[in-house]
Amino acid sequence: MGKNLIRGRFKENLDKLVEKFLAGKDILYDIQLIPYDIYNNFAHHIMLNKIGAISDEDIKAILIALKEIYKDWGLKKFRLKQELEDVHMNIEKAVADQVGPFIGGRMHLARSRNDQILTDLRLFMRDEIIEIQDLLIDLISTLLKKAEENLDTLYIGYTHTQQAQPITFAHWCMAHVDALYRDLERLIQTYYRVNTNPLGAAAIAGTSWPIDRQYTAELLGFEGIQENTLDVVSSRGEFLSDLLSNFTIIMIHLGRIAEDLILGTTSEFGYITLSDRYSTGSSIMPHKKNPDVLELIRARTGVMLGNLTKVFGILKGLPSGYNRDHQELKEPLFSSIETIKPSLKVLTGLLATIKLNKEVIKRILQNNFLMATELVDLLIKEWNIPFRTAYTLIATYIKENPEKNEFHPETLKEFLNKSKNSNQKNITLEMIQSALDPLEAIKRRNHIGGPSPQEEQRMILDRKEKLEKMKEKILNNKKKINQVFSQLLRLVDTIIAK
Amino acid sequence: MGKNLIRGRFKENLDKLVEKFLAGKDILYDIQLIPYDIYNNFAHHIMLNKIGAISDEDIKAILIALKEIYKDWGLKKFRLKQELEDVHMNIEKAVADQVGPFIGGRMHLARSRNDQILTDLRLFMRDEIIEIQDLLIDLISTLLKKAEENLDTLYIGYTHTQQAQPITFAHWCMAHVDALYRDLERLIQTYYRVNTNPLGAAAIAGTSWPIDRQYTAELLGFEGIQENTLDVVSSRGEFLSDLLSNFTIIMIHLGRIAEDLILGTTSEFGYITLSDRYSTGSSIMPHKKNPDVLELIRARTGVMLGNLTKVFGILKGLPSGYNRDHQELKEPLFSSIETIKPSLKVLTGLLATIKLNKEVIKRILQNNFLMATELVDLLIKEWNIPFRTAYTLIATYIKENPEKNEFHPETLKEFLNKSKNSNQKNITLEMIQSALDPLEAIKRRNHIGGPSPQEEQRMILDRKEKLEKMKEKILNNKKKINQVFSQLLRLVDTIIAK
Amino acid sequence: MGKNLIRGRFKENLDKLVEKFLAGKDILYDIQLIPYDIYNNFAHHIMLNKIGAISDEDIKAILIALKEIYKDWGLKKFRLKQELEDVHMNIEKAVADQVGPFIGGRMHLARSRNDQILTDLRLFMRDEIIEIQDLLIDLISTLLKKAEENLDTLYIGYTHTQQAQPITFAHWCMAHVDALYRDLERLIQTYYRVNTNPLGAAAIAGTSWPIDRQYTAELLGFEGIQENTLDVVSSRGEFLSDLLSNFTIIMIHLGRIAEDLILGTTSEFGYITLSDRYSTGSSIMPHKKNPDVLELIRARTGVMLGNLTKVFGILKGLPSGYNRDHQELKEPLFSSIETIKPSLKVLTGLLATIKLNKEVIKRILQNNFLMATELVDLLIKEWNIPFRTAYTLIATYIKENPEKNEFHPETLKEFLNKSKNSNQKNITLEMIQSALDPLEAIKRRNHIGGPSPQEEQRMILDRKEKLEKMKEKILNNKKKINQVFSQLLRLVDTIIAK
Amino acid sequence: MGKNLIRGRFKENLDKLVEKFLAGKDILYDIQLIPYDIYNNFAHHIMLNKIGAISDEDIKAILIALKEIYKDWGLKKFRLKQELEDVHMNIEKAVADQVGPFIGGRMHLARSRNDQILTDLRLFMRDEIIEIQDLLIDLISTLLKKAEENLDTLYIGYTHTQQAQPITFAHWCMAHVDALYRDLERLIQTYYRVNTNPLGAAAIAGTSWPIDRQYTAELLGFEGIQENTLDVVSSRGEFLSDLLSNFTIIMIHLGRIAEDLILGTTSEFGYITLSDRYSTGSSIMPHKKNPDVLELIRARTGVMLGNLTKVFGILKGLPSGYNRDHQELKEPLFSSIETIKPSLKVLTGLLATIKLNKEVIKRILQNNFLMATELVDLLIKEWNIPFRTAYTLIATYIKENPEKNEFHPETLKEFLNKSKNSNQKNITLEMIQSALDPLEAIKRRNHIGGPSPQEEQRMILDRKEKLEKMKEKILNNKKKINQVFSQLLRLVDTIIAK
Repeated sequence: MGKNLIRGRFKENLDKLVEKFLAGKDILYDIQLIPYDIYNNFAHHIMLNKIGAISDEDIKAILIALKEIYKDWGLKKFRLKQELEDVHMNIEKAVADQVGPFIGGRMHLARSRNDQILTDLRLFMRDEIIEIQDLLIDLISTLLKKAEENLDTLYIGYTHTQQAQPITFAHWCMAHVDALYRDLERLIQTYYRVNTNPLGAAAIAGTSWPIDRQYTAELLGFEGIQENTLDVVSSRGEFLSDLLSNFTIIMIHLGRIAEDLILGTTSEFGYITLSDRYSTGSSIMPHKKNPDVLELIRARTGVMLGNLTKVFGILKGLPSGYNRDHQELKEPLFSSIETIKPSLKVLTGLLATIKLNKEVIKRILQNNFLMATELVDLLIKEWNIPFRTAYTLIATYIKENPEKNEFHPETLKEFLNKSKNSNQKNITLEMIQSALDPLEAIKRRNHIGGPSPQEEQRMILDRKEKLEKMKEKILNNKKKINQVFSQLLRLVDTIIAK
Repeated sequence: MGKNLIRGRFKENLDKLVEKFLAGKDILYDIQLIPYDIYNNFAHHIMLNKIGAISDEDIKAILIALKEIYKDWGLKKFRLKQELEDVHMNIEKAVADQVGPFIGGRMHLARSRNDQILTDLRLFMRDEIIEIQDLLIDLISTLLKKAEENLDTLYIGYTHTQQAQPITFAHWCMAHVDALYRDLERLIQTYYRVNTNPLGAAAIAGTSWPIDRQYTAELLGFEGIQENTLDVVSSRGEFLSDLLSNFTIIMIHLGRIAEDLILGTTSEFGYITLSDRYSTGSSIMPHKKNPDVLELIRARTGVMLGNLTKVFGILKGLPSGYNRDHQELKEPLFSSIETIKPSLKVLTGLLATIKLNKEVIKRILQNNFLMATELVDLLIKEWNIPFRTAYTLIATYIKENPEKNEFHPETLKEFLNKSKNSNQKNITLEMIQSALDPLEAIKRRNHIGGPSPQEEQRMILDRKEKLEKMKEKILNNKKKINQVFSQLLRLVDTIIAK
Repeated sequence: MGKNLIRGRFKENLDKLVEKFLAGKDILYDIQLIPYDIYNNFAHHIMLNKIGAISDEDIKAILIALKEIYKDWGLKKFRLKQELEDVHMNIEKAVADQVGPFIGGRMHLARSRNDQILTDLRLFMRDEIIEIQDLLIDLISTLLKKAEENLDTLYIGYTHTQQAQPITFAHWCMAHVDALYRDLERLIQTYYRVNTNPLGAAAIAGTSWPIDRQYTAELLGFEGIQENTLDVVSSRGEFLSDLLSNFTIIMIHLGRIAEDLILGTTSEFGYITLSDRYSTGSSIMPHKKNPDVLELIRARTGVMLGNLTKVFGILKGLPSGYNRDHQELKEPLFSSIETIKPSLKVLTGLLATIKLNKEVIKRILQNNFLMATELVDLLIKEWNIPFRTAYTLIATYIKENPEKNEFHPETLKEFLNKSKNSNQKNITLEMIQSALDPLEAIKRRNHIGGPSPQEEQRMILDRKEKLEKMKEKILNNKKKINQVFSQLLRLVDTIIAK
Repeated sequence: MGKNLIRGRFKENLDKLVEKFLAGKDILYDIQLIPYDIYNNFAHHIMLNKIGAISDEDIKAILIALKEIYKDWGLKKFRLKQELEDVHMNIEKAVADQVGPFIGGRMHLARSRNDQILTDLRLFMRDEIIEIQDLLIDLISTLLKKAEENLDTLYIGYTHTQQAQPITFAHWCMAHVDALYRDLERLIQTYYRVNTNPLGAAAIAGTSWPIDRQYTAELLGFEGIQENTLDVVSSRGEFLSDLLSNFTIIMIHLGRIAEDLILGTTSEFGYITLSDRYSTGSSIMPHKKNPDVLELIRARTGVMLGNLTKVFGILKGLPSGYNRDHQELKEPLFSSIETIKPSLKVLTGLLATIKLNKEVIKRILQNNFLMATELVDLLIKEWNIPFRTAYTLIATYIKENPEKNEFHPETLKEFLNKSKNSNQKNITLEMIQSALDPLEAIKRRNHIGGPSPQEEQRMILDRKEKLEKMKEKILNNKKKINQVFSQLLRLVDTIIAK
């Protein structure tokens, strides 16, 4: 069966090498599709019975056999055989082995492997998206918690990897919260697109049987039907592209957090300490404490980009309809999920356990003329001079006093007051000291989205609320899937019991 | 000015080569940003005046100068100077030239080029998304029209680039309609993400001035505020990735249509004829009629994938905050827009003028055992035999009669009736002829999403309705932008007139 | 051991999740590295003994243990344990288990896992390149054979996927021979770069032990030393990029052959028939004969491009030295090799068994004005008129006689002679018929590289000669490796026997 | 002309939009091809005259006209017209305008734009490769010079971006020298592949004229002929892939140098200072000194990867022969050259002017237990204990004394001697101090490729010698091109003067 079933018109068998080549690693990935293919089979055949294409007797036999397989799968006793090519042929054969070829042979009616695999993949992707959303929510929640704990913890904002302006650690956390929240939003939009019923498209043109696609959609919990049958079969790569584009953006975001932390944990930056539980040693250098976890997350941005390119590369130049090229799409789908899920998990754990070295940050903020912008603003406010004039004044001071690498209030005061005209009031030491105080500077940045603790507090509350709503939405999606599958199993039992 | 304005702390000038290297082709792209930068300047300074950071006198002078530049731009008289680096410095300098350094020098207050360029780009992307949506709608409408005209025009559905099953040309058109509609949907979701206000993030940490970001959002027609300032500055590439992922999926869809048509216009397939207006000749072969337009569209799938990879490649490994690497994101943005817009336009024109060669299609549908699936279904229905049995029977017939390359009703009838058992009724010539009639077969495929003319008609009406709603939404977005900019210009006039 | 060995400075253990995350699938790939790591260990320790860093007694014990492991590996009895992280730690531990910690603990002297893995990978890549070269040679040889058998078999040359000019099937085969030969050439250049000794670089800065890198190079058959230790450690991705760039170009070439054949096997083109042994059927359409093998090869161009992008994506933005990101390079290396080898093998088998349908080709060549260029050349030669004039004349004939879709000698003669001036001699029917004869046209193309059978014959002989030389070179490389490893094993035995 | 010349068979003109779409930006790139197309024309027509296909009279007229155009180009007076599509049609038309259609119309004999553009591109790529090789040599020379000047300048070797072991700055420089030298080697291999004659392939199948391809190869300085005509036309993308793969590897190398320096110039690392001439400021933060140049180089790794993906993406799925898709290959070729050349130039200038802050480096090397490996080796040598035992001992010391962040010789001595057994001699303060001295450690690393000044000196001399040889080879290639073109121009003059 399997290979022979579909070679009726051929006089010669497939070359052994070709058989292996065609199978590839497909069967390995298909292991994850077993339960979905069984649900798919339940729904398809119940529908066929409903429209009278399968007799009451036959449907009973098929469902009993399928349920047996489902049980075996739950007990890890159901194994896929390579020589039966894929999950569909394996399950069809396993049913036929139980019910005999006369009933088993009725199973492939009014469908094709084309719409069957699409249905399995959609059910699978649907579950995985929800799981990834949950992991994103964990990561966001951890960042929100860190933000709350660090509303006035000083931190450094960089541009060009050069120290730029003081911020709080809460502000850094919340920047990533907002980016990851957009990722969540994109994912849920993809979820609703993915969650539509492809079953019934058959090979490419539907079927001459009066199938009820609305009914299978309900049985499987799809929120709608992807209608046009040619579109269904041609779109396999599109849904994957949609998903993997989102994943790549997420990995860019995780990689950015990783890069920030890799820098922060160098001895030179030194203001972040990873927990020992998230650090590694060297095989020959006993002193090393390495951020391998973060490096791997950074690397996986590249990995995900490679997967996305793979998908688009495979699709490029293909005509409409099914092409066997589609099979090669499985690997990037499965491997991308295996790439992103542990990255999210591990990064969440790592962030929950990092330690900030506040003394180091404080020292850095005193150096390096980091408060220059504040002094510019001070002069504009006190003297009502143009921005460009104030900027140039401070820049000149820095040029003339480079060796010191930080502002000396006294010298600065003198330098400034020499430059003012007679109408302008004196800059006092107090003014300078207030301008040079990082926390003061941060508190002044109290506009919408600014790093001031007060504004940050507002944003944290707002994001928590939004996140709660999003969680509810995702939970509802999850619940709906569970309910639908429970109902389907009960329906199977009812039919069997008839 | 320009370069000098920001080098106050340096003792040496930039190397000439470096100056050129840093500028790159930036200024060429910035030409398209001129009007957006002016609107941005209007809004920012009106807001600064509102919060008291710029005097009534100064704002007047600045707005008058900006309006002058806006007028010059309209008359194509405003030119960007390479040595002033970018659009921002060019406009600031042009204002300063009019109002003098004392007032002009006040312009960069409470902002940075970081949030300034982001704001310009968002305004630009917003307009471009709308224009691309309009082009997508044109393409979809052309396909809908073609579908309506070809409800029962026979066409061939392919799998593996091999003839598979008969469909209608309407069904082919509608498959692409549905795919392109999802593209539209993704684009509008991106639109709403893009259309949020980044202004006020300044360099990375906001500003110590009490800016009113809600007010600038209203003045510029943003639907919300992207709040966290560090997030704003770090997210430049994310919005581009979001957009270019969508573009790549769209180009995959256009390339697929192109590939279908390239095949259809070969002498061998021959059922599609391009209008001469969309065909090209050869420099040495006088007989050639080439589908260059379609080949270029196909190639641009690769081009767009390259652009997307460029964006992700640039972003990979970057830490948070602004990095000069972001500048290299401009080229893929601008060139992607130049790639996708003409592709959409030209494909729409080409599709509107193609000719179907119905005789060729008819001939193909008679050959090649194309109706085999129908015969399988016939046997199942008439004899109530399993699918697999019927499949094998027909496959055997094909294996035994390969030379004929099509079903011969008489021979087939005989062959089939020999195989039946005594309880099964005879297969008649009429049954076979009905099964072999492609249009009959298509009409039987009348379930949701099937190619039957009746179902197609339903889908066409449904899609037209959905498209109308989408058009309205897009039109509203466009109107809102126009209104907002008119109001802004009126407000400028009011202030000037005070 | 393993993980504990390198965590001397830590107070807490690795989080379980982190442990799993760090290991990834590394251990799965490492299975293929076992023999190389053993050779590597042999060479390293023999060298350490030579320079006096390991005593005669200790080296004996270590070599005996290693040989035992080597034997077990040969018997498939040596298994890698996930908890020992990688092949290096597994083998070190297995030795230590035999010889006790005092001697086993000496093994990691004067090396690091950084140079150890690099050495393993080079030995592995070296073997794989040779194997892939052999497969390329098989494919080229098959094409050469096909060319020889088809010196005057008519075939169609396409531009724009449109019929352009007649060629021979030999010419088509030889085009691919030349492209694949360049691939071979690039691969051998990469081979020599890869085949240099990284051992001795240690972590990044070499070692304070007076190691003899020339000696390990000889023991392992490296043709030179990659000297600078920092370069060695940083270059892991470069060698992979070099190799995978070559692989991608090869896959582009295979994909092009596949695309040509996919078109040729459609019912519409129809001039190529695949052997049943290389064709597949459909699960629901009994008439289908699908070129799945070719579609998968085409798809794998995209897969390989994805892998290459992955490699470059991982490398992008990394600083010098070892970064854990490098670990993620393993997957694209191993999976690329698994992608390219079967593709080469299967395509060779498929090409050896394809059938040309000469009647179909002949029919095509009569149609479609395909010989137009020949007529242009005829007029230039007979009438000494400019190319552009002749071109326009023939194009006009085609425009005025489109319905016929082929040249009618009589009509054409009349048309042409009407256009000539009185000094020009009459075009005769014979002239036209000769111009329209595809084989005549091909024979006239007798310049270097032209498709004439005579010139083709010359090129076939020339390529065979070149291929023989290349085979010899590759065979020598293979022999050298075998010799070196035999010698190494003998040396191990000698030392043990001392 | 131009467009009309090749539309003889069409009844309708091209749609205006289509015309623009087809042209794209082609004409902009073609400007750089003008001189090459003229040389190409010289050679082709002289050859046609030699074989008697063009009369002595006609060749004279054509060469005179071409020379005129060449002169105009030299004077920047020759402009390409968009409506003539490409450089080939522009030049042909310009000749025809001078010599009349009767002679001008003879020009396209025995060639096609397919082989014409390929020839132009090869001549262009040949020159560009040489120029890029020169730039690579400049960069390598600068690094060699820096290495020579810094033989014993301490520097830090990193793994995982964490301080690992002391090296010299010379060692860092030489690591990049070796990597870039391999790039040079790959480029010259590509050069020889590129430098073969495609002219004579015509559209795809050669020509029925007895052209002399060996002669045009000599006239244009090609080192061989790319023979098979179908291969020639199909291979356009391959040569580009070959070149751009090399470019991407080079950009990975430049990006790595950039990343190292970006880290080194942060205030935190601080041991590298860029020249003001290579540094930039901020528009709002007067204290900033930013490494924009380095960031742009880093970004261009991503840009180049995008270009490479573009090329492979365009090629993927194409059948043999010419496809219009090839036109889209121009942009990535030209833009990649514009990307890589200034990056090489600017990085060379930047490296020549950086300043090392030796005090900072010294301070770092005292901290952080950086010399741990040396202590391990000390214990092994003095006590003859296993590596693992020594490693664990030092790791334990670090774990127990973390707060100090550096080794305290006295404490360490005590700690160690407590751990030794009675047979082992005492570790003295002197031993420890010698182990902790970075320069001593480096000097001990005196094996091949190690960082010791003596070994570095040897490698510098060796690389200089190799580089001299490579320079000579490249110079010879350059000279040969110049000679060939001079000869060609003289031959043109001779023929004109006849």
